[in-house]
Amino acid sequence: MKVGVIGLGRMGAAMAANLLRAGHEVTVYNRSPEKAQDLVDQGARLAARVEEACAGAAVITMLADDPAVEGVVCGEHGVVAGLGAGAIHISMSTISVALSERLQGAHEAAGQRFVAAPVFGRPEAAAAAKLFVVAAGAAAALDECAPLFDAMGQRTFRIADRPPAANLVKLSGNFLIASVIESLGEAMALVGKAGIDRHQYLDILTSTLFAAPVYRTYGGLIAEEKFEPAGFAAPLGQKDIRLTLAAAESLRVPMPLASLLRDRFLTLLAQGGEALDWSAIGQLAARDSGQGDRRG
Amino acid sequence: MKVGVIGLGRMGAAMAANLLRAGHEVTVYNRSPEKAQDLVDQGARLAARVEEACAGAAVITMLADDPAVEGVVCGEHGVVAGLGAGAIHISMSTISVALSERLQGAHEAAGQRFVAAPVFGRPEAAAAAKLFVVAAGAAAALDECAPLFDAMGQRTFRIADRPPAANLVKLSGNFLIASVIESLGEAMALVGKAGIDRHQYLDILTSTLFAAPVYRTYGGLIAEEKFEPAGFAAPLGQKDIRLTLAAAESLRVPMPLASLLRDRFLTLLAQGGEALDWSAIGQLAARDSGQGDRRG
Amino acid sequence: MKVGVIGLGRMGAAMAANLLRAGHEVTVYNRSPEKAQDLVDQGARLAARVEEACAGAAVITMLADDPAVEGVVCGEHGVVAGLGAGAIHISMSTISVALSERLQGAHEAAGQRFVAAPVFGRPEAAAAAKLFVVAAGAAAALDECAPLFDAMGQRTFRIADRPPAANLVKLSGNFLIASVIESLGEAMALVGKAGIDRHQYLDILTSTLFAAPVYRTYGGLIAEEKFEPAGFAAPLGQKDIRLTLAAAESLRVPMPLASLLRDRFLTLLAQGGEALDWSAIGQLAARDSGQGDRRG
Amino acid sequence: MKVGVIGLGRMGAAMAANLLRAGHEVTVYNRSPEKAQDLVDQGARLAARVEEACAGAAVITMLADDPAVEGVVCGEHGVVAGLGAGAIHISMSTISVALSERLQGAHEAAGQRFVAAPVFGRPEAAAAAKLFVVAAGAAAALDECAPLFDAMGQRTFRIADRPPAANLVKLSGNFLIASVIESLGEAMALVGKAGIDRHQYLDILTSTLFAAPVYRTYGGLIAEEKFEPAGFAAPLGQKDIRLTLAAAESLRVPMPLASLLRDRFLTLLAQGGEALDWSAIGQLAARDSGQGDRRG
Repeated sequence: MKVGVIGLGRMGAAMAANLLRAGHEVTVYNRSPEKAQDLVDQGARLAARVEEACAGAAVITMLADDPAVEGVVCGEHGVVAGLGAGAIHISMSTISVALSERLQGAHEAAGQRFVAAPVFGRPEAAAAAKLFVVAAGAAAALDECAPLFDAMGQRTFRIADRPPAANLVKLSGNFLIASVIESLGEAMALVGKAGIDRHQYLDILTSTLFAAPVYRTYGGLIAEEKFEPAGFAAPLGQKDIRLTLAAAESLRVPMPLASLLRDRFLTLLAQGGEALDWSAIGQLAARDSGQGDRRG
Repeated sequence: MKVGVIGLGRMGAAMAANLLRAGHEVTVYNRSPEKAQDLVDQGARLAARVEEACAGAAVITMLADDPAVEGVVCGEHGVVAGLGAGAIHISMSTISVALSERLQGAHEAAGQRFVAAPVFGRPEAAAAAKLFVVAAGAAAALDECAPLFDAMGQRTFRIADRPPAANLVKLSGNFLIASVIESLGEAMALVGKAGIDRHQYLDILTSTLFAAPVYRTYGGLIAEEKFEPAGFAAPLGQKDIRLTLAAAESLRVPMPLASLLRDRFLTLLAQGGEALDWSAIGQLAARDSGQGDRRG
Repeated sequence: MKVGVIGLGRMGAAMAANLLRAGHEVTVYNRSPEKAQDLVDQGARLAARVEEACAGAAVITMLADDPAVEGVVCGEHGVVAGLGAGAIHISMSTISVALSERLQGAHEAAGQRFVAAPVFGRPEAAAAAKLFVVAAGAAAALDECAPLFDAMGQRTFRIADRPPAANLVKLSGNFLIASVIESLGEAMALVGKAGIDRHQYLDILTSTLFAAPVYRTYGGLIAEEKFEPAGFAAPLGQKDIRLTLAAAESLRVPMPLASLLRDRFLTLLAQGGEALDWSAIGQLAARDSGQGDRRG
Repeated sequence: MKVGVIGLGRMGAAMAANLLRAGHEVTVYNRSPEKAQDLVDQGARLAARVEEACAGAAVITMLADDPAVEGVVCGEHGVVAGLGAGAIHISMSTISVALSERLQGAHEAAGQRFVAAPVFGRPEAAAAAKLFVVAAGAAAALDECAPLFDAMGQRTFRIADRPPAANLVKLSGNFLIASVIESLGEAMALVGKAGIDRHQYLDILTSTLFAAPVYRTYGGLIAEEKFEPAGFAAPLGQKDIRLTLAAAESLRVPMPLASLLRDRFLTLLAQGGEALDWSAIGQLAARDSGQGDRRG
């Protein structure tokens, strides 16, 4: 299948490599073209402009945030301008529900098709083709995209024919992860101040009721107070909670726990946590309780 | 080993049965003695009074709440009065940190030993000897109790020599479970109001990042809005959050998520949720967002 | 002074009438021109288009929300297009800090001056020329506007030379009022459920420590559960808390009480409170505590 | 009238002095008798033991907290033991609703009468006989107490015949004050971080919608960051919010704003704020937003 990939960060580059490995004909585009070199060495064609990446049956975008996606897609010489009639734009970035709705409208108006397919998984999962893909769009379009998803992920969930639904699921997933971080942060502040060893405590949790990777991963970071380097930076976490709350506001769903997370992220960023992993909000309960940094 | 078991609810009865099965010499006591019949049939000796259950090397209490435990242990003709010098009281109920401290003091003053060993697991796990035991107390006492714990549970965690630490870990565990319920409740209110199928949504969560039984169990109850019969009743959940907050107040640890849970439980109880499972707080976000009961 | 007034809702019409009364030469504009008739009878000139209202030394806008203001000011044939060099746009609506910044930039680029002067006071205060004006902008511009402010209000506070500061003060004031509503709502839910008469309770409060009109007004509405007709409708309250939180997010200031208010407003709107006064959020604590509507 | 006064802190001593001034025959008792000297000089009789202060028609208690009151009233040789049949115990301290209920029961059982009459006002108001008295109890008892209340306060509110109602009103009043502190703290953090002068901001508030002493007093303390010496110490504020939440829990009334205040006080105390005025919680929003102490 002839497919473009726009956005070659750690996630996008790994996904493009897996598409090549699966035999697809891949054209890649990145604002800084030097990031494309490895992929070119693996057989990708390098597009000099966005439009050149839109010549195939489908084009994937994997970019940082709403403005980046909107700029690349709706701008002059962008994806909407470049994509052929009936071709598919597969948006795999974590974007807002509102932007997803606008993109859907723009592609429809242009006689194109739009699929939202955000993923769960960190860069290592992307590299190992172990992503989980949450896909929404017209059934026929999802069928055509299936070989691409199979090349990049371990499993695809088709959840709706309206693309924005997939973006909402993705955002809510990040809300759930942040909730785990907050709850672990409070629990560890409590038992830690009582003198209980936090690593042993975490071992109890993950050996019993909370035997999920998300507890192991984030519990470990909080117990060790190891928030650098950031696997997923605090500003990205803040952004995703913001987008979750924006979607909740549109739907008129009060989410008090999401509101708490919002305030946690603002506190973290206001106090200089810009470069830390988002799990650093899990340290705020301990700090509020007067427990200083214990790494020293 | 010669051991007494006081409190023959679903948990206590199952634990006593497993002690018998493992060959221990068990004396049981329950306020309503008719609950003891099955165990007597399996070889237990029935104590007519609390003190008779305290004649062995150790006595286990497995009762509903603080007042029940304090009454049985500290009352006239109670455990403290009945237990021999050097004998061990193993408190396996979910009680407050403050009561655990008082019990420790009372037993020390009487020349006895005290072990706190609350458990994680529902009645089915107790019946299958699959409980997780979180034990704290003097090392020698824990060594002596080990065969008893092995008979009742699948694994024992020894976490501290001060018994109240085990009670704090247990309470914090229930706080973490309630946090999962709240986060799932908010996420499902959000995606549900957007028209996404809640069962499919839960399937995505538990197939990917949240593959822990606690997400499957409580997510399922919330998705189906099936809160009766109660596996763990709402007033017990409210009590455990209250005890968590009380411990946090003593230690001066602010826990905003626990505060939110407190308000959720009060709302549930104020609106007639007395008989529901504690996971019914996971329905409040949907209710606040104007989504009625969908079971009809 | 020759001045235009754009937006003739209850507030804008009353303000324009007071300007006429003070002897200013007033040109008025409203999308639905029939609202202007009374003012024309009092001596105002009716503008057929926005630009015609911009011919004087200053033009006042008093409109419902950000989109209305942005449309009138920045649209084709809008205020920026119509205003002469050096003339002043006085924005008196409650708008976002971000829009105020954009307006400031647009007017500067066009060689015009911009003053933000939102007001505190309900329509009755506007009619009685008893508004409080919170003004920000260049000192010379504020000096020139002083006679206009004097004609409309009882007192003007000059707080900064950057216009958006005035908008932030206005938003924060509405946040403080909503906080009063929430606190009264919780207190009345508490004493009301204990059987204490809510009117007598309010009388105690307002006779002692809380002798401010805001307690009397909103306490009375909550005690009587009288939320219709709306003096200030719930969606406007929700909007102002949203704008407060947006400004707080830009500045990275966590405001947990504002977050709580946000969730209250969403709950109210989700449950059909669209047409109620914003003080109806003060009824939610009672409702959560199982107290039904007592108006009988 | 022959009356005893137990507890001669700043409040109790001022109240006893005003009773003497009004011509009542006053016997005073304090654990540290040296505090009574001034009153003895003004004509009071000094009791060596609690019981001696209970010989008249009524005895007033004005003590620090629940344990102090319960000890003095219910202990051996306490008020219940010392008071004659039909005599009145007037509890003017800020105590829990639950203790008030226990005291009522104890006095009834002893054939005595119980009146709860907590007050609003700081020590200066007590000295000036300007307190507000919130009284609850049997009508006849309140009638008999009226001359005493008139001697100590500027106005008495009779709100119920069940004494605990008065204690609930008092606690809810302190909750409302703490809510004002929190709301001002968040608003000032917001406008302060935007560069607006906090004193001028406060002036706007208190000149317009918030012209109540409580805004002036606490707003001034927050604007100046002047939390020492404490007029009302943080641990007392924390205690009153705890008692408010305890009453709310008994009545099953969720109070999310009170929960937020609870967490604020715990944070303040955990970070060393023991000796500060309770208004220091109004500094936490600024601190969370990265604004340091500006007094330096």
